Amino acid sequence: MSFSAVEIIRAKRDGHVLSGAQIDWVVDAYTRGAVAEEQMSALAMAILLRSMTGEETARWTAAMVASGETLDLGEVGRPTVDKHSTGGVGDKITLPLTPLIAACGAAVPQLSGRGLGHTGGTLDKLESIPGWRAQLSADEIRAQLIEVGAVVCAATDGLAPADRKLYALRDVTGTVESIPLIASSIMSKKIAEGVQSLVLDVKCGTGAFMKDQEQARALAEALVSIGRAHGVRTSALLTDMSVPLGRAAGNALEVTESLEVLRGGGPDDVVELTLALATEMLAHAGLSEVDPEEVLASGRAYETWCRMIAAQGGDPAAALPRADHTHVVAAPDDGVVTKLDAYAVGVAAWRLGAGRSRKEDVVQHGAGVLCLAKPGERVAKGDPLMELHTDTPDAVAGAVEALDGAIEISDGVGVPAPLVLDTVR
Amino acid sequence: MSFSAVEIIRAKRDGHVLSGAQIDWVVDAYTRGAVAEEQMSALAMAILLRSMTGEETARWTAAMVASGETLDLGEVGRPTVDKHSTGGVGDKITLPLTPLIAACGAAVPQLSGRGLGHTGGTLDKLESIPGWRAQLSADEIRAQLIEVGAVVCAATDGLAPADRKLYALRDVTGTVESIPLIASSIMSKKIAEGVQSLVLDVKCGTGAFMKDQEQARALAEALVSIGRAHGVRTSALLTDMSVPLGRAAGNALEVTESLEVLRGGGPDDVVELTLALATEMLAHAGLSEVDPEEVLASGRAYETWCRMIAAQGGDPAAALPRADHTHVVAAPDDGVVTKLDAYAVGVAAWRLGAGRSRKEDVVQHGAGVLCLAKPGERVAKGDPLMELHTDTPDAVAGAVEALDGAIEISDGVGVPAPLVLDTVR
Repeated sequence: MSFSAVEIIRAKRDGHVLSGAQIDWVVDAYTRGAVAEEQMSALAMAILLRSMTGEETARWTAAMVASGETLDLGEVGRPTVDKHSTGGVGDKITLPLTPLIAACGAAVPQLSGRGLGHTGGTLDKLESIPGWRAQLSADEIRAQLIEVGAVVCAATDGLAPADRKLYALRDVTGTVESIPLIASSIMSKKIAEGVQSLVLDVKCGTGAFMKDQEQARALAEALVSIGRAHGVRTSALLTDMSVPLGRAAGNALEVTESLEVLRGGGPDDVVELTLALATEMLAHAGLSEVDPEEVLASGRAYETWCRMIAAQGGDPAAALPRADHTHVVAAPDDGVVTKLDAYAVGVAAWRLGAGRSRKEDVVQHGAGVLCLAKPGERVAKGDPLMELHTDTPDAVAGAVEALDGAIEISDGVGVPAPLVLDTVR
Repeated sequence: MSFSAVEIIRAKRDGHVLSGAQIDWVVDAYTRGAVAEEQMSALAMAILLRSMTGEETARWTAAMVASGETLDLGEVGRPTVDKHSTGGVGDKITLPLTPLIAACGAAVPQLSGRGLGHTGGTLDKLESIPGWRAQLSADEIRAQLIEVGAVVCAATDGLAPADRKLYALRDVTGTVESIPLIASSIMSKKIAEGVQSLVLDVKCGTGAFMKDQEQARALAEALVSIGRAHGVRTSALLTDMSVPLGRAAGNALEVTESLEVLRGGGPDDVVELTLALATEMLAHAGLSEVDPEEVLASGRAYETWCRMIAAQGGDPAAALPRADHTHVVAAPDDGVVTKLDAYAVGVAAWRLGAGRSRKEDVVQHGAGVLCLAKPGERVAKGDPLMELHTDTPDAVAGAVEALDGAIEISDGVGVPAPLVLDTVR
């Protein structure tokens, strides 16, 4: 069936619900180049301002999945389950979580992206490990899932090409902030990945894409609803991102912190969120009887990590890159830290070289921020609050500027916000 | 001053008023290609759905004028005044009106376009006159205004190039129906033309772009407000376009009907609207003491027509092209014609070959529809209602189909709607 792009744009512009056939056609025609970039951007703006129903969003997702190949995970011999985070500062949870879930008996095909802006990318973090490679073929992914149960790698080009094209377009046309478009973008990649179940970590707060809880909840509901429509067991945790997760923001710094968690230590919040997501994932995978806390303490998750890294060419025992320069930010007063703004820390890490401004930028593996004092902790005047790490000392001034006003120290006792705010099922 | 396109798109998307500097920048950058087509289409959709204030629209218009050259009419030695119609079926008013106003003592630089869709274009109509050419240079336009006082020709490429580029984009992205964008498009060309005053014929009804009077009034007000902001004396007539103007729709057929008017005859409605617009234009030009009805009756408008056509290479005495085939639509009943739908007649004329579907199509000069009976006129069963003219007899079936339901004949006495509905000043 053939439609006119202008007719479809006008229908959405005027607030109508698009038919399944219209959605299938326009996504396919856009992928093929028969609907022009300027037509899709007008449609994306109309969708942003007029929205889409749950049914339209599910169909849009299906059309993006159908634009490319899907991974067949039927033969990996374990229940498959994945996690996706909407992104936050210091969010290294994928690193301990993936081997933990594999050590619990499920298979985790974590197809990830690189970072852009103030949040880091999982692949950038793992690439700080000498020898580790992100590009795997579909056959390599399947083989590693059978052997190790855990893969973290780059999404293959063939998965949801419509989404890749549309995402790049939305980025330059002011059409990113649409819940149906964000939800369908996330879910098209995860559905094409072929998993049976999925847990979403939808973050809200200054360091997250969604600044307030209402928006985050709406996104979580849209994601869960798409998953359900596609037969993927899906739930979402709403989690706080007003404070960085853990103490480290930056690639190798976060790998180091993740290794502490895998060895049974690490910051409380990172451990808490890892276990909360693990519990939800194991329930989906039919493995509720396994206790992830026990598996983490046993060292089996760490063993799986080593095998997972080695399977992709990495040396799990190698020393990680360190930045050439360190700058300490000292406490201006005695008192208790009552605020540590996630966004400011993310921007500081980015400016120090941990992130990129444009896709083609190269990241510094050792760069980033270590938060030596977190909310609720007492400091004395002159104590180190943060360590800024960079290979480019000129970047320190910009990072310090980003941190202006980000930290508050007072006499009061701040009550820290709960980390997991709610679960959407 | 430099801005980011995404920032401007997001501001409009979120309902903010754009600053003058933002508007200047985005229109200029789009004209230069520094803002991409997909970015401008997203912005156009945001403008369509969020609208622009009168001040934004005036500034947008100014930026489009500034994107190219403007005609300098300072030396033509007469007051300059122009008319613009939003387009209707059988709307040949420019043909008698332009020489009439020149014969009354003003100068009319009528820069026109070609037709697309169900309404005809003035240039297409005049090109049915053997030898007549539409392309004049700026110097030729000025010389003819001094000599004859009247020019109808194609807009030069240098006038408001931003508008030409944006118009083509809006056409394929579902972003035509925005009053600020329509109004700024019309006015940018007229302001670049350099006239001192302007009368707009804003049509409403089935055959017009604006189907209802509320929309038409909103457009008229936007147009008048832009004119005022640019120091052009501007007013607008709201006129009915539910019935074709006159009896002829089609290029040479309309020239013939216009010649009847110029010779003191012609259909009442064409004469009425010509004189109404002339009165308004003469008032703007400071020539209220001149009676256009008297000038029309004197033959001086017809003389000016002949000089205007001859100055552009046309032979005013030459026989006009006639279509090869004629098909008569007969009255199915006795009675009074109570409805003759303008849109249906426009589509029929278009299908017969009078109009184009794509810019590169060639029009048939002789094709079109003659309406032998108009609303209020009595017919007997079997009387000819319409004559369909075409060089391509295969097109007759499609034209007849377009006319299905377009004509009503009943016992009642239909009260014809007034032609001029209101004046917006």
